[in-house]
Amino acid sequence: MAVDLSPEQELLRDNVRRFMEREVAPVINRHEAAKSFPFELLGAMREFGYLGGRLPEEDGGFGLDYVTWGMLLEQTGYYWMSLRTLVNITNGAINRLHAFGTAEQKERFLKPLLENTRRACFGLTEPDTGSNAAGVQMRADRRGDSYVLNGRKMWITNGANADFAIVIARTFSETCDGQLSAFIVEREVANYDVRPLDTMVLRCTGTAELGFSDVSIPRENLLGEEGGAFRNVLKGLNAARVNIAMGAVGAAQAALDLSVEYARTRKQFGKPIGSFQLIQKHIVDMTIRTEAARALSYNAATALDRGRDARTECSIAKLYATEAAHEVANMALQVHGGLGYSTDYPIERIFRDTRGGMIPEGTTEIQTLIAGREILGLSALT
Amino acid sequence: MAVDLSPEQELLRDNVRRFMEREVAPVINRHEAAKSFPFELLGAMREFGYLGGRLPEEDGGFGLDYVTWGMLLEQTGYYWMSLRTLVNITNGAINRLHAFGTAEQKERFLKPLLENTRRACFGLTEPDTGSNAAGVQMRADRRGDSYVLNGRKMWITNGANADFAIVIARTFSETCDGQLSAFIVEREVANYDVRPLDTMVLRCTGTAELGFSDVSIPRENLLGEEGGAFRNVLKGLNAARVNIAMGAVGAAQAALDLSVEYARTRKQFGKPIGSFQLIQKHIVDMTIRTEAARALSYNAATALDRGRDARTECSIAKLYATEAAHEVANMALQVHGGLGYSTDYPIERIFRDTRGGMIPEGTTEIQTLIAGREILGLSALT
Amino acid sequence: MAVDLSPEQELLRDNVRRFMEREVAPVINRHEAAKSFPFELLGAMREFGYLGGRLPEEDGGFGLDYVTWGMLLEQTGYYWMSLRTLVNITNGAINRLHAFGTAEQKERFLKPLLENTRRACFGLTEPDTGSNAAGVQMRADRRGDSYVLNGRKMWITNGANADFAIVIARTFSETCDGQLSAFIVEREVANYDVRPLDTMVLRCTGTAELGFSDVSIPRENLLGEEGGAFRNVLKGLNAARVNIAMGAVGAAQAALDLSVEYARTRKQFGKPIGSFQLIQKHIVDMTIRTEAARALSYNAATALDRGRDARTECSIAKLYATEAAHEVANMALQVHGGLGYSTDYPIERIFRDTRGGMIPEGTTEIQTLIAGREILGLSALT
Amino acid sequence: MAVDLSPEQELLRDNVRRFMEREVAPVINRHEAAKSFPFELLGAMREFGYLGGRLPEEDGGFGLDYVTWGMLLEQTGYYWMSLRTLVNITNGAINRLHAFGTAEQKERFLKPLLENTRRACFGLTEPDTGSNAAGVQMRADRRGDSYVLNGRKMWITNGANADFAIVIARTFSETCDGQLSAFIVEREVANYDVRPLDTMVLRCTGTAELGFSDVSIPRENLLGEEGGAFRNVLKGLNAARVNIAMGAVGAAQAALDLSVEYARTRKQFGKPIGSFQLIQKHIVDMTIRTEAARALSYNAATALDRGRDARTECSIAKLYATEAAHEVANMALQVHGGLGYSTDYPIERIFRDTRGGMIPEGTTEIQTLIAGREILGLSALT
Repeated sequence: MAVDLSPEQELLRDNVRRFMEREVAPVINRHEAAKSFPFELLGAMREFGYLGGRLPEEDGGFGLDYVTWGMLLEQTGYYWMSLRTLVNITNGAINRLHAFGTAEQKERFLKPLLENTRRACFGLTEPDTGSNAAGVQMRADRRGDSYVLNGRKMWITNGANADFAIVIARTFSETCDGQLSAFIVEREVANYDVRPLDTMVLRCTGTAELGFSDVSIPRENLLGEEGGAFRNVLKGLNAARVNIAMGAVGAAQAALDLSVEYARTRKQFGKPIGSFQLIQKHIVDMTIRTEAARALSYNAATALDRGRDARTECSIAKLYATEAAHEVANMALQVHGGLGYSTDYPIERIFRDTRGGMIPEGTTEIQTLIAGREILGLSALT
Repeated sequence: MAVDLSPEQELLRDNVRRFMEREVAPVINRHEAAKSFPFELLGAMREFGYLGGRLPEEDGGFGLDYVTWGMLLEQTGYYWMSLRTLVNITNGAINRLHAFGTAEQKERFLKPLLENTRRACFGLTEPDTGSNAAGVQMRADRRGDSYVLNGRKMWITNGANADFAIVIARTFSETCDGQLSAFIVEREVANYDVRPLDTMVLRCTGTAELGFSDVSIPRENLLGEEGGAFRNVLKGLNAARVNIAMGAVGAAQAALDLSVEYARTRKQFGKPIGSFQLIQKHIVDMTIRTEAARALSYNAATALDRGRDARTECSIAKLYATEAAHEVANMALQVHGGLGYSTDYPIERIFRDTRGGMIPEGTTEIQTLIAGREILGLSALT
Repeated sequence: MAVDLSPEQELLRDNVRRFMEREVAPVINRHEAAKSFPFELLGAMREFGYLGGRLPEEDGGFGLDYVTWGMLLEQTGYYWMSLRTLVNITNGAINRLHAFGTAEQKERFLKPLLENTRRACFGLTEPDTGSNAAGVQMRADRRGDSYVLNGRKMWITNGANADFAIVIARTFSETCDGQLSAFIVEREVANYDVRPLDTMVLRCTGTAELGFSDVSIPRENLLGEEGGAFRNVLKGLNAARVNIAMGAVGAAQAALDLSVEYARTRKQFGKPIGSFQLIQKHIVDMTIRTEAARALSYNAATALDRGRDARTECSIAKLYATEAAHEVANMALQVHGGLGYSTDYPIERIFRDTRGGMIPEGTTEIQTLIAGREILGLSALT
Repeated sequence: MAVDLSPEQELLRDNVRRFMEREVAPVINRHEAAKSFPFELLGAMREFGYLGGRLPEEDGGFGLDYVTWGMLLEQTGYYWMSLRTLVNITNGAINRLHAFGTAEQKERFLKPLLENTRRACFGLTEPDTGSNAAGVQMRADRRGDSYVLNGRKMWITNGANADFAIVIARTFSETCDGQLSAFIVEREVANYDVRPLDTMVLRCTGTAELGFSDVSIPRENLLGEEGGAFRNVLKGLNAARVNIAMGAVGAAQAALDLSVEYARTRKQFGKPIGSFQLIQKHIVDMTIRTEAARALSYNAATALDRGRDARTECSIAKLYATEAAHEVANMALQVHGGLGYSTDYPIERIFRDTRGGMIPEGTTEIQTLIAGREILGLSALT
């Protein structure tokens, strides 16, 4: 209830929800069991703006602002966190290619992403350093007209299914002495190693470890300026945090809605369990957390739309919404009793998937230190 | 940062804050020590809308909407919770007299309240039943042209200083068999007993127990319809809850601001304590709670402005904001260390006063059951 | 550190841990992936007292007190919650058969359980009523020398693998008008329906739904007095709660130990993550919860050993230890970052399995109301 | 219920409680209002061991172990936190004088403390550095046969009433270049400044700031080795932490007992409030926290009795028990509703006084870092 949407945004939301109910909800269980993903969905969702929606219309996008985009992500989170994650990762690649790609790169990589004919992943995180860009160890050595990549990338969403990866590597060349660059690496050409990773969360997102051992890629696959990737990676962080927050809000709302319905109908000791005070307390706590998470997330999106440096807003939205979503899911599981564990029922999936939010894009602890530094003007990391 | 105010509202807020800094802040400690209150302040604050601001302009008010009014209360809470409480209680009487008073009652009671020449209190709560209107035991027996009041009212804010009390009593007359009515009882005339109560919270608000033993008041002091007070009491609850929430948001912000300032400057182990991670965690947790409380409170005010039945919004705003404000104050005290306990410093007052929010106008537990009933459509009280 | 064990108990513990390290730890991942269980382990563990250890020595047991037994369960929880659960369920059947079985029943069912040649499950919970014994709907109708069973049992641990089930049913016969009785139902003979249930927790415990549709069993399979099962079910609840608490304590300790080790060695920003204050806070919070859970659990076991009516002690031990274990596991996951999700690593299993504790044997909410009734002498359930 | 006391300890406890009920409970309100303390009580309590109880019998003590001593402190906390604090501070001085005093110092200072004819305070904390011994700035300059003291001591318990202070100062002499020494400073002789401090907590303990400006004291008032105080200060920290934990456990138990009684008898909506689930949840949460705090505190005392280096045990006992006591008091206040605020009733005093525990003797944050360093072997302070 907490957000003011325009009539156009409300219409879009309602259309999206109808689509999700009809096309997405029925297929989730099957794909969760198989750990697969129906990539054709992304194509069908394009009309709502889910592929490149934030791009200007002249570049094939919809010119969506952050609030509308956030609303779209909230809806994906409501239905299926793996869907939200793949929408997010795909648009991350789209945005990067749009911002930094050459005309040729846009033709070869951006266009097929917008048309849902290719799949991308983004490789920043490494086994030894996590998502800390400053700690990247993978290296790219310039050799004539090529770069030779060596290193490993970890927890790469869509890594198992992507046709190409945008990877960040420390670059060594005539003009570069270890600064970060971004490279487009095609799987079929470069033949890098892909080790699928089995995780508790987001089972349909094809998480993988990628290994690069003397992988040679042509110079034209450098994305953006040589040595200029660090700044660019940082630039996208605020929006990425709001995106993950929005998905968490949707998941929290889903867990709450299922719990209200269940508490109204499930009987124990001769009456609906929703008429017990301890269950009402869960429901009200869930409602408060969901509303607060939504308010903080849309505040952050609004701040981004106004062009403000919204670092604190984005960090606390990410921190709070992901924690809240899992707490809500945890209470939802408790309201559902034994049924909450059952893989036949969506609660256990939401419980697992929401646990996936507190670590990527900066852990809760890192967000605390980012927001703390902004508020206090003091760093507590060193 | 979370609220969109219009330029006019921002201007009003800035003027109010300047006034508070100049006129209010310097006198608080003196009055806290003496447990007294500078009633002349209310007169000076009238120009901002603090007396009858929600009344239509033609009736001597400012026609303020709930959001503007909430912003005004937030500012009082920022500086002094006792001030917020007396503004709130005075306007409660103003609103009641405006809504239900006869022309003569308005002349005798409403006008002097607007002019800050009389002082009022409101008597609903009783020793044995708390604020549950359905449990009121005080009785008013019609005797000719008078009513005879018997009973006790407990925890009555401003009771020690009020010239008159608006009290709720179970009425017995030809046409009334125990329904609730409201009566205006003048202290000088009726000479009811006033026992000041010493409490940990809101020490300057003149909390008292009022005793009525065969107190006779003239029939024209009946406020509103005989037997019609129950409905009217309930009607004002939503707005009362938002008011208390707004004050709590202000207090939380004050505790946060003091803590940020202290953490930046106080040194331990050779550096500002704000550069320790555990302190940053406090500051960030405080920020999140304050922002979430503000968002929920202004959402509730907005819902009231739109004329919606905003019971859930108002209940969760009251519940969350009052709990959050005290948690924030508790963390602020911890950030301040020993200084936090000192009565020389505002944190200990904010810590005590914010603890005052979780009980009146419906405890946290009662708000949980009110919101739960709204959300689930099931009562858990019986 | 919080518990005083005798030298004999310490020796037993150390032997058990050596066995677990050698025989149990290496096989867990394989069985978790296959959702199978190495039942032969139970035979090997018999020498430590894990089968019938609480029985008197003359009846094939070890005469263990509750503290020693609790320590044994703590160790199973440390290594593998599915193992704890199967030890628990098997001994539940052993204790019931020992207490109420006829000589013939002991020969046919108890002896093979002690020798690990048969497998049992216990059927109380039903789809519509949960574990509330008073709500059992399954019925057993006496027909000549048989009983005819109709109904369903839900969330039955080991149900998928058990040779026989001890089920509770509402009995109708010449002398019984709906009171509860216990029956031994052999799967091969009675051919009841078994539907394996896929759950997020305790994946190796063969959880199933059992369906009984006109299942006829001979009169001699009545276990205990006809109509006398309700009292007997209640009698075992205190010990069952301590058992589940002890397993939770073990799991918490395991999550803590893994986290300490990881925080000491994993580096971020150039130093071990254990040297960051926010990580230290997690580790200390985990330590406190684990120690407090252990203290409350052993206090409850000690109270049982002294023959006290230890209902409050057992309820709060179950409530606190299961909640604490999952909170500890949740923090452990956070300390481990992305690795914490990985199914290659024990943390994600401990995270899921510990979530399994807050629901069976009385949910956290039910334990609250049980302990509350004991402490206050007032029921809040009706 | 969680602690095993010997019959002798139980007898002592019962005698102490009878004394407290008769002699202490009735005078608390009067002294709280006056911010005074009935020092004669300490003399009367000597027979139970409250003055020098931990000293060997040959030195005028009772040879009490830490568990018995902890039980005694728990009882003071149950009745009056200001009493606990003065017992603690007095015995701190007694123990220091016993351990390090010369024969003459024992005669002049220790004996009168044991006989309750003099009063002492201990000055470590300073305005700019808190209780961090390494940061002490007060200095003592050797001048012939005297030391000249300069500096300020802050938050000194009993400072307003003490006849003499034991103060820690950085020493400069022929053999000392800034190391810490302890000095006995007599108020009447040295005439140091005493500024009473008004605080929210422990109002009867005479908290003061002490100012030393060229205060000259004779050489024989050096307590212990010149320059050797740092080690000695650290040595006593473990026991001091357990002492404060024990008092917190007592206060928590008092708040719980009052709440159980109130919830059983106070009626709302026609039944005792203890029969509402949300109140039962408070009561059970309070019980769990109190029991866990007690278990951790007695575990720490037991570890000290066994001569173990019990730093982790003592730190987590102090951390958890002080936090738990205030949380319990906070819930007790909520259970009591408006009555909880009233200064006529003990809950508001317990609420305030328990807030006093999380800061002295090392804040919660410092305890976290102490325990974290012990557990992880890594410091997070630098």
